[in-house]
Amino acid sequence: MLIFAIRNSSEVNAMKPSLTQETICAPATAPGLSAIAVLRLSGKDSFGVMSRLFVSYGQKTEFQQIPARYATLGQIISQGEPVDEVLLTRFPAPHSYTGEDMVEVSCHGSPFITQRILQLMIDQGARMARPGEFTMRAFLNGRMDLSQAEGVADLIASNSSASHRMAFRQMRGHFSERIHDLRQRLLHFASLIELELDFSEEDVEFANRQELTQLLDSILKETSQLKTSFSLGNVLKMGIPVAIIGKPNVGKSTLLNAILNEEKAIVSEIPGTTRDAIEDTIVIEGVSFRFIDTAGLRESEDVIENVGIGRTYEKIRQAAVILYLFDASDTTLEEILATISEFREKISDGNKRLIPIANKIDLLEEMPHHFRNLVELETIFVSAKRKENIHMIAQTLLESVKTSPEEENQYIVTNSRHYEALAKTAEAVTAVREGIDNGLPGDLLSSELRLALHHLGTITGEITNDEILGNIFEKFCIGK
Amino acid sequence: MLIFAIRNSSEVNAMKPSLTQETICAPATAPGLSAIAVLRLSGKDSFGVMSRLFVSYGQKTEFQQIPARYATLGQIISQGEPVDEVLLTRFPAPHSYTGEDMVEVSCHGSPFITQRILQLMIDQGARMARPGEFTMRAFLNGRMDLSQAEGVADLIASNSSASHRMAFRQMRGHFSERIHDLRQRLLHFASLIELELDFSEEDVEFANRQELTQLLDSILKETSQLKTSFSLGNVLKMGIPVAIIGKPNVGKSTLLNAILNEEKAIVSEIPGTTRDAIEDTIVIEGVSFRFIDTAGLRESEDVIENVGIGRTYEKIRQAAVILYLFDASDTTLEEILATISEFREKISDGNKRLIPIANKIDLLEEMPHHFRNLVELETIFVSAKRKENIHMIAQTLLESVKTSPEEENQYIVTNSRHYEALAKTAEAVTAVREGIDNGLPGDLLSSELRLALHHLGTITGEITNDEILGNIFEKFCIGK
Repeated sequence: MLIFAIRNSSEVNAMKPSLTQETICAPATAPGLSAIAVLRLSGKDSFGVMSRLFVSYGQKTEFQQIPARYATLGQIISQGEPVDEVLLTRFPAPHSYTGEDMVEVSCHGSPFITQRILQLMIDQGARMARPGEFTMRAFLNGRMDLSQAEGVADLIASNSSASHRMAFRQMRGHFSERIHDLRQRLLHFASLIELELDFSEEDVEFANRQELTQLLDSILKETSQLKTSFSLGNVLKMGIPVAIIGKPNVGKSTLLNAILNEEKAIVSEIPGTTRDAIEDTIVIEGVSFRFIDTAGLRESEDVIENVGIGRTYEKIRQAAVILYLFDASDTTLEEILATISEFREKISDGNKRLIPIANKIDLLEEMPHHFRNLVELETIFVSAKRKENIHMIAQTLLESVKTSPEEENQYIVTNSRHYEALAKTAEAVTAVREGIDNGLPGDLLSSELRLALHHLGTITGEITNDEILGNIFEKFCIGK
Repeated sequence: MLIFAIRNSSEVNAMKPSLTQETICAPATAPGLSAIAVLRLSGKDSFGVMSRLFVSYGQKTEFQQIPARYATLGQIISQGEPVDEVLLTRFPAPHSYTGEDMVEVSCHGSPFITQRILQLMIDQGARMARPGEFTMRAFLNGRMDLSQAEGVADLIASNSSASHRMAFRQMRGHFSERIHDLRQRLLHFASLIELELDFSEEDVEFANRQELTQLLDSILKETSQLKTSFSLGNVLKMGIPVAIIGKPNVGKSTLLNAILNEEKAIVSEIPGTTRDAIEDTIVIEGVSFRFIDTAGLRESEDVIENVGIGRTYEKIRQAAVILYLFDASDTTLEEILATISEFREKISDGNKRLIPIANKIDLLEEMPHHFRNLVELETIFVSAKRKENIHMIAQTLLESVKTSPEEENQYIVTNSRHYEALAKTAEAVTAVREGIDNGLPGDLLSSELRLALHHLGTITGEITNDEILGNIFEKFCIGK
């Protein structure tokens, strides 16, 4: 059992020295004119660099004497000239984000000033941080594991309560706990197998084979649940893809605008805050829905196409929810039923949901008789032009993804790297499972087990290497 | 003398109550995805609002017990659910930017999260701050005067060391001291005149008329110096306007690009920092130069025009420095001299500078004889195409605005509001001066003096009203 532990920690430790010798700096806030901007500095000489640049107001205390975490007013000075009046906070190691000595400088939010102060920091021996380098150091210094670090990036990118909630839980280590727990159980199994190997001459079986297979089965079940959760997780993170299909002139673009406008009124309540609005996305009660291929809808109505061919097929393939729009004043029941059944035939994915929408009810003088049948199909009757009943579409969209209470408590995988690692883990565990059934010798089981432990270990970063780290952190913001 | 003091403070005090009853909140950093974002809260109930939203990690101390200015890690909680992990700093009054109780919350830099936390603050009784409202409160609470507040906005907008230095000095109160000093001297004068009025029946003259006129003359001289500095101040703040003129096909747009590219290499040294680059502006040793009417140069070469008509005239009129470009391989000395003399004739402003530039020296096999005369005219010989000698243009541009050491220590007025107030002050003081010469009675002098004191008082905000404040602060960022 020790072999795993030793290898892992030495791999991680090997990366430390080259990194933590250097002091890094970066802006931590978004660029642009603003009231304030925050610059960050981390590393061995952070306090040295700042002691040569900062003079506090009031009693002239030595830089090292400024109380930890105490926001101190003073000036950044270069060659005797003041550069800015700033608020500086010292975070002595290990109680900082990175675990190293850190300084945060809150200066005036002028790009000219932030660049100037960064230049001074660099002149004093710091260097610009690479994207995610602060968080990478936090990981290397044991302040968080790898999946938590990835949660930080997801948290910053989150744009709906669903994606926010998943990222927050991941950052706080909920997922890590699950993976750690899985890995511990696998390690327990592996230790028994290794023990048998040590005593292989004596032909003992420490591990009851039946208990072992039960353990493996439960691990496989859990891995499989996590893997399955990924499609939901991915969809919640990216926004649930929704397609609007229908014949030309049934009002698809009018409907799209009506749905999007309905939401905009809610979004822009707070003046001065910029919501990074993703075009053609609406957020309903914290879940975001992304309308796909809306460019076509915006430019012009689609060309005539049957379900199942060309662009319409592509939209249906990508979508999780399909709004099938037809003109209530001008469509026969036969046609509607035919389209729905054609759809069901072509798309055999049980997870996709089709919502029939009858548009242009404003043109109807009375309810046609055949509408009775449409109600049974849970059709929504709207007037896109008059914006009537649009909120019902929003409600129905939301219902289409409501998770059951049981699922609520399940951890949802949102990261494709984690998904891949889980898939590889499952593969290796399956091989072990089959190996036991086929009476494979312990040393062969052991090598598959190591593989499974390796893949699980990459998720939390118990096992890692430069390439994995590079791939993960290059996607971070500068300054995080 | 008292009448001025009383009126001023009561005017200011009248605004306080309605403002400081409310607790305001706003993002203080620029919008966009980033490592962190900072939210600010100021006002009576700042601590109350945050005590209902923030739970610190570690020992569960009461919110009011969190040490002042101590960066405390914890969570923002809404209905039992964590919204974000944040660093919170309490700034109890009066030692805060606004002089009120303030809180700064440093959260993850996700627009979704910042909006959510602001919404929670609003739900708890805060309201969104208006642009500049934090600084306005700082002014109303006596933390800074009005010209200092304006310095804050200028500091944020500064994009060269020249504009930065002027704004910083203004923010730190250097200008206020000058104005305050001027006003004190005027007040001294006014008090003597008022005293004479009180004893007017007795026909005494407390103030020696000769000393009075000397005092007025020195005030006028100083006001006039400050007024004069405005054209330089404005130019340093906005960038010195430079025009490139010349016949078609002499290489004006190639030259512009060569100059701008020369600088870009210098600017983008620090990765990850975004310089709010103003297009067609270069900064040379901290002074920014703004090329005017470059749209025409970019699109196509200008139509043929003589100096003094149409677009070329307009460019010359607006510019402080004119680069007169000609084709060295294809222009006679006569033509060059004629253009320069025509220029001198049309533009009689001694402050404008004309720099002759001979382009296309790469096409010359040998130096033409008449170039000797051009050297005397301080002509710069370049090849815009091969980027040869472009740095000499930068150097010459810089020399064209070098201020004398004497000017260096002079305060430079950069704000048009201050310029106007100074102009009106000078007008009133001149009227007093002429009144004395013409033997006007003391009560008439006194009313002009009040006018002068009023205008000077508006600069620092000793005298102010809603409209002045509104105009000033509406130009600020949200959150400042």
